[in-house]
Formats: sequence, structure tokens, C-alpha cells
Amino acid sequence: MPLSMNRDVFITCAVTGSGGTQDMSPHVPRSPEQIANAAIDAAKAGAAIVHCHVRDPETGKPSRDAALYREVTDIIRAADTDVILNLTAGMGGDLMFDGTEAMHLMSPKSDMAGAAERVQHVLDCRPEICTLDCGTMNFAEADYVMVNTPGMLRDMAARMVASGVRIEIEAFDTGHLWFAKQLVTEGIIPAPVLVQLCMGVPWGAPDDLNTFLAMVNNVPPDWHWSAFALGRNEMPYVAASVLAGGNVRVGLEDNLYLSKGVLATNAQLVEKAASIIENMGARVIGPDAVRDRLHLTKRAPL
Amino acid sequence: MPLSMNRDVFITCAVTGSGGTQDMSPHVPRSPEQIANAAIDAAKAGAAIVHCHVRDPETGKPSRDAALYREVTDIIRAADTDVILNLTAGMGGDLMFDGTEAMHLMSPKSDMAGAAERVQHVLDCRPEICTLDCGTMNFAEADYVMVNTPGMLRDMAARMVASGVRIEIEAFDTGHLWFAKQLVTEGIIPAPVLVQLCMGVPWGAPDDLNTFLAMVNNVPPDWHWSAFALGRNEMPYVAASVLAGGNVRVGLEDNLYLSKGVLATNAQLVEKAASIIENMGARVIGPDAVRDRLHLTKRAPL
Amino acid sequence: MPLSMNRDVFITCAVTGSGGTQDMSPHVPRSPEQIANAAIDAAKAGAAIVHCHVRDPETGKPSRDAALYREVTDIIRAADTDVILNLTAGMGGDLMFDGTEAMHLMSPKSDMAGAAERVQHVLDCRPEICTLDCGTMNFAEADYVMVNTPGMLRDMAARMVASGVRIEIEAFDTGHLWFAKQLVTEGIIPAPVLVQLCMGVPWGAPDDLNTFLAMVNNVPPDWHWSAFALGRNEMPYVAASVLAGGNVRVGLEDNLYLSKGVLATNAQLVEKAASIIENMGARVIGPDAVRDRLHLTKRAPL
Amino acid sequence: MPLSMNRDVFITCAVTGSGGTQDMSPHVPRSPEQIANAAIDAAKAGAAIVHCHVRDPETGKPSRDAALYREVTDIIRAADTDVILNLTAGMGGDLMFDGTEAMHLMSPKSDMAGAAERVQHVLDCRPEICTLDCGTMNFAEADYVMVNTPGMLRDMAARMVASGVRIEIEAFDTGHLWFAKQLVTEGIIPAPVLVQLCMGVPWGAPDDLNTFLAMVNNVPPDWHWSAFALGRNEMPYVAASVLAGGNVRVGLEDNLYLSKGVLATNAQLVEKAASIIENMGARVIGPDAVRDRLHLTKRAPL
Ligand SMILES: [Zn+2]
Ligand SMILES: [Zn+2]
Ligand SMILES: [Zn+2]
Ligand SMILES: [Zn+2]
Repeated sequence: MPLSMNRDVFITCAVTGSGGTQDMSPHVPRSPEQIANAAIDAAKAGAAIVHCHVRDPETGKPSRDAALYREVTDIIRAADTDVILNLTAGMGGDLMFDGTEAMHLMSPKSDMAGAAERVQHVLDCRPEICTLDCGTMNFAEADYVMVNTPGMLRDMAARMVASGVRIEIEAFDTGHLWFAKQLVTEGIIPAPVLVQLCMGVPWGAPDDLNTFLAMVNNVPPDWHWSAFALGRNEMPYVAASVLAGGNVRVGLEDNLYLSKGVLATNAQLVEKAASIIENMGARVIGPDAVRDRLHLTKRAPL
Repeated sequence: MPLSMNRDVFITCAVTGSGGTQDMSPHVPRSPEQIANAAIDAAKAGAAIVHCHVRDPETGKPSRDAALYREVTDIIRAADTDVILNLTAGMGGDLMFDGTEAMHLMSPKSDMAGAAERVQHVLDCRPEICTLDCGTMNFAEADYVMVNTPGMLRDMAARMVASGVRIEIEAFDTGHLWFAKQLVTEGIIPAPVLVQLCMGVPWGAPDDLNTFLAMVNNVPPDWHWSAFALGRNEMPYVAASVLAGGNVRVGLEDNLYLSKGVLATNAQLVEKAASIIENMGARVIGPDAVRDRLHLTKRAPL
Repeated sequence: MPLSMNRDVFITCAVTGSGGTQDMSPHVPRSPEQIANAAIDAAKAGAAIVHCHVRDPETGKPSRDAALYREVTDIIRAADTDVILNLTAGMGGDLMFDGTEAMHLMSPKSDMAGAAERVQHVLDCRPEICTLDCGTMNFAEADYVMVNTPGMLRDMAARMVASGVRIEIEAFDTGHLWFAKQLVTEGIIPAPVLVQLCMGVPWGAPDDLNTFLAMVNNVPPDWHWSAFALGRNEMPYVAASVLAGGNVRVGLEDNLYLSKGVLATNAQLVEKAASIIENMGARVIGPDAVRDRLHLTKRAPL
Repeated sequence: MPLSMNRDVFITCAVTGSGGTQDMSPHVPRSPEQIANAAIDAAKAGAAIVHCHVRDPETGKPSRDAALYREVTDIIRAADTDVILNLTAGMGGDLMFDGTEAMHLMSPKSDMAGAAERVQHVLDCRPEICTLDCGTMNFAEADYVMVNTPGMLRDMAARMVASGVRIEIEAFDTGHLWFAKQLVTEGIIPAPVLVQLCMGVPWGAPDDLNTFLAMVNNVPPDWHWSAFALGRNEMPYVAASVLAGGNVRVGLEDNLYLSKGVLATNAQLVEKAASIIENMGARVIGPDAVRDRLHLTKRAPL
């Protein structure tokens, strides 16, 4: 019952997301080269893991183009700076409706892909880690649903595991964490298990401490975990996660600002997180220590 | 900080659900008359509120037929036993997929209705309360999603409020509760607010006490609330909810058994809940006390 | 994360305390024979364990007279009804002051005994269990302190363990539970460890659910535990403890009333607790099942 | 339910305690002048409040000498740097025993003073704040008890309030916080109420997050509060307290090290705390803002 904080903390930097943050900061990387360079800079600043989406280099819109993932992967793999690559597999479950009456139709704005398609870039690029958004939920948009059915999650997870890539389970609410445990119980996701608690994403779990601790109390003791929150709660959650025994995630996917009115780079966010961690008396660990902990193998893309 | 349990508790009986429980117990009512009679028996046993779905009288399958709701309503209204009628508005957001590859298509097994259609029976029957499932999520089925987008929830809620029916918000996870607060903040749902915490429904919030208390801690102090859990945790949650300051829900929608191997009637479940409540030193209150608390007006159907 | 309630629950009945409850109910037993008979009746009603203090048969005042403990023990041991005897060792640490100025003097009203004297009746009577109040704290009285220094607790615990009696640690606040873990860490208290969470005793831990769950979350998973609260929260805590995974304690030491204005007997309180437990779907277990769980050996007094 | 962290945080620096820390670091101030200077340096580094004990200038032992308090007060009041003075009133309730047998005797090592004597320096020095240790408990020493009976606390609190000094309630466990609420309910302590949650002091409340949040959840919403933990958890608790909505306390009373093996000054600890607070996106506020919040009046000593 003495405070069981994490004293050896790894930082994940989520360098660019799938939302429309491009227009809000010039520091959000867009092209594969920009994304890879942002990742490498984040690694230099202390991130052991870089979590990457890709974007259409022309428009900045989120993309699922396998060639873009491959380009990002190749540049990061070729860099002098060692870092663990974590590719999103969260794209392709984007269901849109046109208002609230024509509910029997998917809006053409939807992007709904099958399991094979959703993991293809993972099988190709062989990152050390890829994400699995462990449930279906609303987001802030009025007519949008992020769709990941139980069947889809079992299917995607099995493909990821078969490909030798470690899964980072993303839990956006307590029910997602519950289903993650189900996937482990069913033998689909093997140990060591890694989960990211995604706090304060509307309309998933809010980021108040009571909810956060309830989730942390439900993470099995032998799992590895990290947590993050959005916007101005990104840095507070660096502290919250370390205090509760977890690792941390920062980056422009989750928050654009270094301080009120001051736009950040990914590397600056990592540096600030590292400063909080070290001032709390913990140590920031690098990619090899994380590989050891999560049993990761760095492999060349296929 | 002394225990702030609820000492004046109302019981909701959920007499028949939308799941396939019909085949598992002969006591699950099917026809409008059976449903209404089960509701009246539950009221006689101590339920202040009866929560009703309707079923196809031939097949037992869940139905959205307005005539069936109307029949249930009419019988309950005409009964000598006073009870508050709570009609579900949870039907019509049932999205199915055919496996995990053809994700760009809704399965024909889906039942996806627009907002107007989803609330029509509420406007017709004018129950004192109707439910609003406050989010989108997976359930135990592999290829199913319960769809209630933020836009849909705003739309349905506004129609319910305009019709003079009190909303019972159903929160299946912490994010649903958060969005419920958003609906109140936006002025769409007026005070007094009523929320049902639906615990242990896979894959929503699990029913461990840490998660439950985190949700309870997030219910605003001026809201009214109730909670339930499924299966063999139904009776334990009668105690849990009262202890945490809430009201209770039991019934065959959530649990079929009185004890291991013994099938229950709705009235028996209400009696057992009442026994727990009274043994804990609290009082079971009736429909008029609840009307007073929730500002309900009993009105004839249109 | 599904609710991890206790489904095989033992009941301890605390038949008579050390406080001045004698004057408030004719059902509080006073003489050794009355105490033993109350204990036996409680056992018949379902208590696996009876927790006993003794009182001066003339005055009803709490007593530490070894002969009285022996008489209670002999009658209970000789009875046809099997039950586990738990004797208090909480007496003899009662420090009183005369007001708030003469703090350098112990009031003659104090009853402060050394370690050897405090455990003598335990060594003589060889109950299967005896209590250890695991800290020093204020109670409701203005000028009273219950004194159990760390040194005293180590000393008493070692003597109890050496005598072959199982310790029931009584934790009245979170710090007492912390020190209990220290005693286990130091090897003074051996496994299987048993702790009683004493909730809502002023001015120890209040009995709100947040505090209770924080304590429960800090009970090591391999310990056995029980909890109780005072007065009208006695029955609610039967439910609370079972829900949280623990066992229960009721009895006239903690609460005099069966319901508002109705004085209870010990047996009636046990029956009511058993009813709550069984209505929640759990089972009440008897002395042999508890002996098996706590590794108790029933021995004759010396 | 979004994170309700404190974004305008005040820092208290506890510059020197009553324990034997003098021998362990040359930076722990001893003479009144050293203590006052340490306090002023802490204020320059960002502390809005300085919490002071006094020590025998010759031996370094904790002292209750009114002249020493007065000297500290005079120097701090005369300094160019503005700061809120908080004097301890925790001394004089130190009860010692000689082992575990002679419990009917106070050891001559005890320092047990009456209420009038314990607050005399507060009445003389008229600091803006003084502390009130809100309960009786064990500490790490085997034969020691910190004694503050309910009667003593009512008496001391009434004297403090009558003298115009604001009380900082020190709660070392959940029961202390409960009694603090009782003092407020009884009208003895007026609004605005200030409480310090003292976490991880053996054998009070441990500093795990579940216990901490249970205490925070029990602080009334209109109270002001701060929290600290000892040793290497001092800096983590800066983050914990801010996250949970509170203010922070650091200083050599609680922790001697800046980092592993590196002895700190009070000012360095304040600077480090300020860095954590600001990196989390909060602001450190100064004495005038605190005066405004706590309704403090700076007065000259009598
Ligand atoms: Zn992402
Ligand atoms: Zn329903
Ligand atoms: Zn007792
Ligand atoms: Zn101090």
C-alpha cells in the first residue's frame, strides 16, 4: 500500500493522428518523410516507442495506403536512432451516417474495411507493435461510430499475433478493457500483454481520477500498461500514469500545445514528459529495455 | 463520510427484454397481455416502476410494433394496481454484420430505424418514463453493434422531452454517463434527471465494485439513479445500489433465476429485492412517492 | 472485473462488547453463563464464530478477569453446538485523561496493562481465535485513547502466535491495516492471515463506500477478511462486505436494534444477516469450513 | 468528470520538522535565524506558505520554547520577502512508554502539555496559520504515541480560532479527516476550512492512490486542501495532489533528498515542485492570492 508508482517509465510518442489536426498546427507531420522524421526526433528526445498513422501527403487527410506506411517504416528503420515502431491498425472502422433518419444506410463518407485489409500494412511492415482499438463507440462527431465488433477484434488480433507483431490494446472505456481480458482468456492475445488506457476521449471513459483508478485497478498485475489524456490534460496524465504504475504517451495526435497558446513539436512534448517523469524521481527507459520487457523482436519489413 | 445509503428505495421491474430469453424460461412474458400482467404482478409485489419491451406474440422475438406497445400500455393503465410505466426506446439501433470481411454492408439482419420511428410509440403511449440508451457499443454477439450516435441521442431525447415523457438514461459504460451529462449541459434533458447504471453487460462496464463506485462518484448529486447487474449478480446489485445511494432494478429482462436452478417470476424477483432492501433497514417506496421525486405526470395515451 | 463477491460467507457474532451497552438493552448478556448462552444461540442461528468479551456479573462493566473468560470458554466448549470461540484481547489499553490540562498524568480511570497481562486469558483459555486491535486511536469519548503501540502489538502478537491461537487483526483505520501488513512482513503473524475491517467507529475509518473499498483494495489477496459497521449500518455492511469479497460480523457489541425501535437478540441479528447473505445468492458456512480455511485447531483450555 | 486538477496551486514549505533529521543533512535549519532564513529562501523559490517548527539551537532537538518561535516569527515578518507563516502546534502531545510491560506509567521521555501551553506560542506570535494534528496515532517508533484526544482538539481549536489564527487541520488517516468534519459541524472550526492530507506517515494512512483518493473524495467541496508524502514520494505527491485538485507541501521536514543520494535545500525542493506544477500546466500562486482564498490577515506578533 505504499505508493506503487512506476520508476522505470517508457514514453510513446504518437506523432500524428487520424483527426483533422493538420490544419491546426504546422508541426503536425504529413508526408511519410515528415512523419518518420518527427518520429526520429521524438526518439532522440526520449521516446522509446513511436506510434504512427499515415496521411495523404497532398491533402493531409488520414490514409490507409500501405505504401505510405511502408515509406514511414523504411525511413525509421534506416535511421541511426533506434526506436520501437508502433503502427496504428485503427483505420477502416469508420462508420458515418447522414443525419438521424436514414439510419439503414451507411453514409458514403464511411470507411469500412474488412479484417484482412485492416491489418495488411501490419503484415507488410512488421512493426514491433501495432494497435488494436478494443471496442465500438461514439466520438465527438454527431454522426460517426468507430466500429470494432467482437468478431472483428478476434479476427484482427489473431492475424496480428500470427504475424509476430505485439499488440497494443487500446481501451477507451472500461468495457474495452474487459473485452481485452476476454481476448487474453480466449488465448488470442498472448503474454506479455500491453494495454493503452485512452482517457478523456469523448465519448469514452472520462479522465477524472476515480474513473482512471477504477481502470487501473482492473489491469491485471502481470500486464504492461500506459495511459494518456487529450489536450491540456496530456501532461497531467504523464504524472497520473506514472503515479498509478504505468507508462506514458504524449504527442501531437493527442495534444497540439506545449503551453497555453504555444504550439508544440513532438520532440518538445517528449522532452516535457521526460522532465516531469524525472522530477518525480523516475527514470525514462529506452527501446532496448522496452523490448526486453515486452519481448519484442525488431525485424525488417517483408 | 458516514455511509450514505438510500433509505427510501424504488424498485423497477424489467419484465421482459429484447434478448432471446423467451426460450430459456416459461415465465418470460410474450404477448401484450402477458407482459402487462407480469407488470401488474410486479407492481403488486412492490415495484414502483415497470420497464417494458414488447415481443411478437407468435414468435417471441423482440418487436417494435406500436400496436403491441399500445396494448401493453392500455392494459396497465386500466389495471386497479397503480404503477409507473417505463417503455423502452432502445429498439431500432441494431446493426449486424455478416462476418468480418463485408464490413461495408449492413447485414439484412440489422434493424436500423430513424429517430422519428424509434420514438413513435413513446409519443403515442405517453408512458411516464422511457429509456434512452446513451451510447454505441458492442455486446456479447460477435457481429452486432448497438448504435446510438450522439446526433441520434440528441434528436431522440429532444422528441421525448417535447412529448412530456421523463427520460431514463441508460448508461452502459462510463462514457455513456459522460455523454448524459453533456445532454444535460446542452439543455436537452431537463431536471430532475434519472439515470440507470447498467453494470456487467458485455462489453460495457464490468460490475466489479471499483468500476461501479467510479460511476456512482460521477453521478451528479442532484440526479436520481438506479443500478442493476445481470444474471446471478442481479440480487447482489440490489444491495450494491442501495449501499451506494441508488435505487434498484430487477426482472426477467436481466436474470431468469430465483436461485441456482430455480426459474423465477418477475414478482418473485421483486419480492426478493424488497426483502434485501428491508433487511438492510431501508424502505421500499411506491409509485406516488416516485412521481413526486421525479416530477412525473400520469397521462392517458393519445 | 466481474463482481468478485464472496459466495461462501462466515458470520461472526460479537455477542457483548466492552462499551456501556448493557444499560440500553436487556438482551446484552452480562454473566459468563449469559454470554456463553448468547454465543450458543448465535451459533445455532448460523454464526460460525462467536467473539466474546466478559463483564462484571454484578455491575455489567467490562472486565478483564481471567476467571470470567474461563467460565465463558468452558460453557461454550461443553455445549452440544459447535462454534469457533474468538476472545477479545482488546482490553487493558484504555488510557483516560482528566480534561485537557493535566495531560502529564494518566487519569485513575485508565486501565493500562502490560503485554503479558493482556494476553494471559488467551493463553489460559486457548480459544481458536483472539483479536489484536492493530493501532492507537481516539474514540467518541472526549478524554479517552485506545493505546496499542507498535511495540505492544509486536509483543502481544508474538505471544498469541506462540500459544497456537489464530489472530484476528482488527483494523479501525487504513494505518492499522498498513501496520498489520508490517507484522506479517516481519514474520510475526503467520499465514493464513485474518483481518476484521472495523468501519464507522468514531474516530477511525468512516464507513462510506469509498473508504471501505480503499481498505478492501489494500487487503492482500491471500488474506481472509471480514468487515462490520455500527448501529443502523450493521445490516448494510453485511451486504457491503459480501459484495466486496469478505465475511461478516454482527452482534450486540456493534448494534442493539433489529429495526428502528425494536431491540434485537444476538441470534436475531445472525438470522437477519444470514437472510441477506442467502438472498444475495451466497451460502453461510459453518465452523468446520472456517477451521479448514483458517487452519484452526480446536483445543481444550489448559 | 473531466479531470478536475488544481490549476492555481500554492506551495507550503515545511522547512524543519520535529524528528531527528538534523543529523542526516546539514541543510536542515536549526537556530531561529537559520529556520527563518530557510523559510525566506523557500518563499523566494515559490512557496506561498512556510510551515515552521523550532529546535534547540544547541542540540538540534525539537523544542516548544516560545522565545524560539518568537524569534523565527520576528525575522520572517521583518524580511523583504512576503510569505505566509504557518507555525506548528503539534508539539506537546508526545507520550512515551518504557517497553511493553510498565504501561501504567508515562515514560519520563514523554512531553505531554496541556491545551493552554500547547497553543501559547500561537497566541503570542499570531502567525496567519497554525496546524492542528487531528487525532491520536502510532508512529514508526515502537513505544511512542502522538496524543490528541477529541477533547484536546476541541479545546486547542477553540483557542486558535479565538486568537484569529487560521487552522490547518492535519489529517494523518481517514478517521482524522472524519473528526475534522465533526469540528466543523460543531462550529468550532469556521470556514474557509483548510486541511493537509499527510500521506504515508507510518502508521497513518498509506500513500497508495486508492487510499489517497478515498480521502480526497471525502474532503468537502468547499474546503481548501493540500497533501504531501514522505521521502522519495514527496515529489510524486506534488503531482498527485495537483491532479486530485489540491495544493502541495514539500520541505526538509518530510524529505531530505533532491534525488537519490543528493541532499536538498528547502529552496531546491520548492523549485522542483514548482517545475512539476508548471510542466503539468498549472500556475504557482503567491501569498496574496492564498490570503484571499483562505481569508488570512497578516498581523504583527503581540
Ligand atoms: Zn493513434
Ligand atoms: Zn430494457
Ligand atoms: Zn470486541
Ligand atoms: Zn510540521
